[in-house]
Amino acid sequence: MGSGAFTLALVLALSTCVTPVERKCQLSGLWRNEQDSLMEISALDDDGGFQGEYLTRVTLAGGCTRISPLRGAQQQPSEVAWPTFAFTIWWNTFSNATTAFAGQCFVDASGREMLSTMWMLREAVGSLEEDWKATRVGRNVFTRKRTPKGKILHSLSPPCEDAALPVL
Amino acid sequence: MGSGAFTLALVLALSTCVTPVERKCQLSGLWRNEQDSLMEISALDDDGGFQGEYLTRVTLAGGCTRISPLRGAQQQPSEVAWPTFAFTIWWNTFSNATTAFAGQCFVDASGREMLSTMWMLREAVGSLEEDWKATRVGRNVFTRKRTPKGKILHSLSPPCEDAALPVL
Amino acid sequence: MGSGAFTLALVLALSTCVTPVERKCQLSGLWRNEQDSLMEISALDDDGGFQGEYLTRVTLAGGCTRISPLRGAQQQPSEVAWPTFAFTIWWNTFSNATTAFAGQCFVDASGREMLSTMWMLREAVGSLEEDWKATRVGRNVFTRKRTPKGKILHSLSPPCEDAALPVL
Amino acid sequence: MGSGAFTLALVLALSTCVTPVERKCQLSGLWRNEQDSLMEISALDDDGGFQGEYLTRVTLAGGCTRISPLRGAQQQPSEVAWPTFAFTIWWNTFSNATTAFAGQCFVDASGREMLSTMWMLREAVGSLEEDWKATRVGRNVFTRKRTPKGKILHSLSPPCEDAALPVL
Repeated sequence: MGSGAFTLALVLALSTCVTPVERKCQLSGLWRNEQDSLMEISALDDDGGFQGEYLTRVTLAGGCTRISPLRGAQQQPSEVAWPTFAFTIWWNTFSNATTAFAGQCFVDASGREMLSTMWMLREAVGSLEEDWKATRVGRNVFTRKRTPKGKILHSLSPPCEDAALPVL
Repeated sequence: MGSGAFTLALVLALSTCVTPVERKCQLSGLWRNEQDSLMEISALDDDGGFQGEYLTRVTLAGGCTRISPLRGAQQQPSEVAWPTFAFTIWWNTFSNATTAFAGQCFVDASGREMLSTMWMLREAVGSLEEDWKATRVGRNVFTRKRTPKGKILHSLSPPCEDAALPVL
Repeated sequence: MGSGAFTLALVLALSTCVTPVERKCQLSGLWRNEQDSLMEISALDDDGGFQGEYLTRVTLAGGCTRISPLRGAQQQPSEVAWPTFAFTIWWNTFSNATTAFAGQCFVDASGREMLSTMWMLREAVGSLEEDWKATRVGRNVFTRKRTPKGKILHSLSPPCEDAALPVL
Repeated sequence: MGSGAFTLALVLALSTCVTPVERKCQLSGLWRNEQDSLMEISALDDDGGFQGEYLTRVTLAGGCTRISPLRGAQQQPSEVAWPTFAFTIWWNTFSNATTAFAGQCFVDASGREMLSTMWMLREAVGSLEEDWKATRVGRNVFTRKRTPKGKILHSLSPPCEDAALPVL
């Protein structure tokens, strides 16, 4: 076998090795969405559960916001390259509303990770008659924010005295 | 004024004091929705967090289901009579899909509790091009199921061998 | 052929005629939903298009409402027993919001028709930054209201002077 | 005061008058969304009603698509710079599903028009028991496509023999 054929075989073998069909998408870390809201997701538990923090930039009524805790779960944590997930946020210091996100983690052709999510924002209403109007729906795309990890959201959170209505 | 009249006035005054305008709605316990799916919510943590289990009666593809864990949070746990809440369900043993609910706990005029919720069901898709179609939306109303408490869902879950697609 | 066999054949033939597998669901007519809002849908065009009128009982901000025109379409009008449909409502005299419904017409086991719908209510916002919060979502089930047909909604509409915010 | 200063003052005054804070957003014309689907909206009626055509690039089941008619309405057509609107699409030649969009027309800081919309896609199901899973939800942003106007969608539509399931 000539050296040319050997080189070709080697290149083919290597390219097979180094070209994974799908790069696995990792939920943990710091993420930012189109509205410049920030989200930090902790490492995942064995069962796919995770915790984190959310710093919104937008509110229903304007006003300042605080870092809020989130809790959620990823499906089939070890087997799937692009897992689906869902989480909920507590806005408890400044709102009687609640938000749930559901989405999937993707890696695009250039290797960039993104979280494609949809959310529901549920506001409290004072009676069953007003229940019909209490749920808003929308979409958010998060991309990974490259920064030193750690409790970074705390350093980014502005001092805040005002009360504010529900947020995303 | 006679002692009878005085007693009557006292009773009236007290009953006014001890009759709250709104009876507080409690998330914990066993609930059933229109599709006969069952949900059991644990006692709440100090911060409003809760865990539970969900036994669905419906699936996207038919097939049998298993009890699935859920995790969520209630807003402002101690201050609000009719709190909002959100939770997510792991269907991990039989699906790469995930579900998030958001809703509010109400007590109607007859004292009956109900959970008015909306949900999103996110399916896994194989590429970003298919992302647009991955999210379904719907509504569920849960009423309290009066049964002996405990790990009752486990006794209600049928034996199950089949794989099944995402569920609600 | 004996008379027994003849009778059997006759019974089979008749039962085939009088037992439709699915009774066809008709969109046209007067409908009422859980909130007591009323809707009247005209006869359908050849291509499935229809017009109608909507009288809501609920508004985002309270206040009185007026009969509003609606316009929509039914899919595959002649071939399907339980067609899907969608329509939009103009709230133009009292709101800069708009509503779209999508649903399916069913006939239940007892022959009762119902429209199972979901809707989106889009409010106007003043800037792109507020766009995220502009869409609400919900569900409505309509049942047929048995009343003399015609321009009945007009006789049911209360006199109305106030401006009111978007409605369903 | 010299004539130069007077002219300047006049120009300033006029420019204040003739520079609207918000450029009016026009629905009519040709639009394209993130998935490269195309939409052509006709001129509006006096009451805000419009017709048009939609050429989707994505379907639930894959397969080819055809140009589909749409019909809708814009709120308060003459008074609002950034009107809300809603419309429905007939997929009648290739699907028993239906789609409703609701959104708002914006002009961004650089004068570029966009339609921010959310949609529901309702599939037909065979029974009330399956009704819960029939509605999908998503978001689309359309930007104006600069091309010669007219029946341009017809020249862009590929020849198509296959049947295809519901689309967006």
